[in-house]
Amino acid sequence: MSEVYADRRVRLRDRCAAAGSTAALVSRPANVRYLAGGSPPGAVLLLGPDEDLLLSPVAPGGDPADGRLDEELRLSVLPAGAAIADPAVAAVDTARRAGADSLAVEEHHLTVARHRAMGSVAPQLRLADLAGAVEQLRIVKDEDEIACLRIAAEIADQALGELLESILVGRTERHLALELERRLVDHGADGAAFPTSVGTGPNSGRGGHRPSDRRVEEGDFLSVCLGANYRGYRSEIGRTFVIGTTPADWQIELYDLVFAAQRAGREALVPGAEYRDVDRAARQIIDGAGHGEALAPRTGHGVGLEIDEDPQIAPSAMGKLDACVPVTVEPGVHLPGRGGVRIDDTLVVRQEADGGPELLTITTKELLAL
Amino acid sequence: MSEVYADRRVRLRDRCAAAGSTAALVSRPANVRYLAGGSPPGAVLLLGPDEDLLLSPVAPGGDPADGRLDEELRLSVLPAGAAIADPAVAAVDTARRAGADSLAVEEHHLTVARHRAMGSVAPQLRLADLAGAVEQLRIVKDEDEIACLRIAAEIADQALGELLESILVGRTERHLALELERRLVDHGADGAAFPTSVGTGPNSGRGGHRPSDRRVEEGDFLSVCLGANYRGYRSEIGRTFVIGTTPADWQIELYDLVFAAQRAGREALVPGAEYRDVDRAARQIIDGAGHGEALAPRTGHGVGLEIDEDPQIAPSAMGKLDACVPVTVEPGVHLPGRGGVRIDDTLVVRQEADGGPELLTITTKELLAL
Repeated sequence: MSEVYADRRVRLRDRCAAAGSTAALVSRPANVRYLAGGSPPGAVLLLGPDEDLLLSPVAPGGDPADGRLDEELRLSVLPAGAAIADPAVAAVDTARRAGADSLAVEEHHLTVARHRAMGSVAPQLRLADLAGAVEQLRIVKDEDEIACLRIAAEIADQALGELLESILVGRTERHLALELERRLVDHGADGAAFPTSVGTGPNSGRGGHRPSDRRVEEGDFLSVCLGANYRGYRSEIGRTFVIGTTPADWQIELYDLVFAAQRAGREALVPGAEYRDVDRAARQIIDGAGHGEALAPRTGHGVGLEIDEDPQIAPSAMGKLDACVPVTVEPGVHLPGRGGVRIDDTLVVRQEADGGPELLTITTKELLAL
Repeated sequence: MSEVYADRRVRLRDRCAAAGSTAALVSRPANVRYLAGGSPPGAVLLLGPDEDLLLSPVAPGGDPADGRLDEELRLSVLPAGAAIADPAVAAVDTARRAGADSLAVEEHHLTVARHRAMGSVAPQLRLADLAGAVEQLRIVKDEDEIACLRIAAEIADQALGELLESILVGRTERHLALELERRLVDHGADGAAFPTSVGTGPNSGRGGHRPSDRRVEEGDFLSVCLGANYRGYRSEIGRTFVIGTTPADWQIELYDLVFAAQRAGREALVPGAEYRDVDRAARQIIDGAGHGEALAPRTGHGVGLEIDEDPQIAPSAMGKLDACVPVTVEPGVHLPGRGGVRIDDTLVVRQEADGGPELLTITTKELLAL
């Protein structure tokens, strides 16, 4: 495993060298984990000039949720009560003493106050901007990463499947969400990938709806969005159901519309496709039905070590899909006061020759009446 | 309620004026909520020069977890697809057009990249540092805030009390933690105040231990740390128990030591006491027993809208306690490989005449054998 991380660090070093920095400091936790195998709370990763060094405020607790650190990587734990308490500041000092002249840092993660403290310990050292270099490296996943995402998706499918077999009427959104999160853990998740969303009746179909005390009623739409965190990799699945009896006409109509848009988005997932074209494929169907303004500003996003990472599937997004990029396709329409539908899958972009987009979240998308 | 928030904003304006800024921009969510009554995701609060304005990227969803916005406060929702998508950047532009010459911003919260974007829309506007001004205002609570903390503490006591009545042997740390979080919600919490920590055997007594799959065994120490979020206010309680039979001598010894240290810390909570002296009161007892290096760098912290806020109860902390400041007292000792003890209460500093420190978390602290 170790060479995987070493290889990622080499690729980042090359980018920095090309940009004129002999050293880089990675502080964003997901980026640290990507390059070091793990991210003890508060730890930062210094790349070069001579060697790579993980600086941590505390000794790694061996907490599985932090991942397993690359044992080839040199680790430095700041002594308690050290003059420099912030590992990022200590890293700048280390880079200075190692003779670096320029250090690329993550200006999109470091606060102004922290960046100033880093500059003050090494006035001669130029602090450059690493920008999203690590996030860019993270977009295309290797097969080990995809294997973790596949398991994370399976776990979410299992948790959701069990919920559907239970009695739902009369239970609150909050309790359904808590039960789903417990089942995720039962099936081997390190935890939920993000706060589980359960929306009933007028709350259904609202993206990111936080569960309330509203109880499931006959005739409700019930929309659920959950995901598992497995070894740091996060899946996402969203489904919408109707409760009891048979769906009303408006429910069937709205469901068919969102389903058609979601399918169009999935089918647009081919290597080389513009992000914005994938978004348009789903968006234009909902626009065409006059629900455009009810649609979220984006219809999908990348997943991996974070539940929301690049690429963004949105009208103004720049860039093209590559193979082995996992993304969500999640259009939804919410009608204020009535509720709505959201259908959300995690898929991996694959070459046509490899069978096209690989669907990781396999729970049925037909409209189930529960 | 509205005048409470207006009054807080007036006090902040006064501080800014004294520091030479005619306007301030608050971006840290807990600070926005403190001053505006609520904090829709991504919203920022602009104070002055003429009026106060809450800028939000989306229309507030009326999510109770976001709090209830001060209805006297003017709200501006950024139009979807606006040229300026970041409310903080839009706020700078608004302040510029309103004729502000200096804007104090939260440099400890804003990233370097975001701060640069804010500067670029108004090169003539001087961006000053608001630093921790709002955090300072938040330290002393009013009785309404303390009432929320009291309820948050009661809820955690109830959840913990129910767990103690159930069978524990054979269950995993993870499942005990999930059950506690479910019970918090059952008793009216908006959610857990922080990830519930359950440590058994060798994991017991580790501060911030994340629950693992280890199962509770006879003879274990079991340490639990949880809290409730009630209307945004967060309580914290930590207890340690022994499982089955009678405690071993080393367990009784260690428990008595930590208990004595925690009591000393509680008794040191008087208005006017130096933070560091409160820390020393607890620390010196554990130092005296030769376990000093096993002790965390601090023995307590403030609680409120965040689970970890000022003041810090630590050896190097500067400042004195005031009345109506809620803090935790949470010394713990963890012996690698054997486990340990952690005892954690939330209390409110009160004048002696008012009965001294008010204990919010009332679950017994005698060593229970379960």
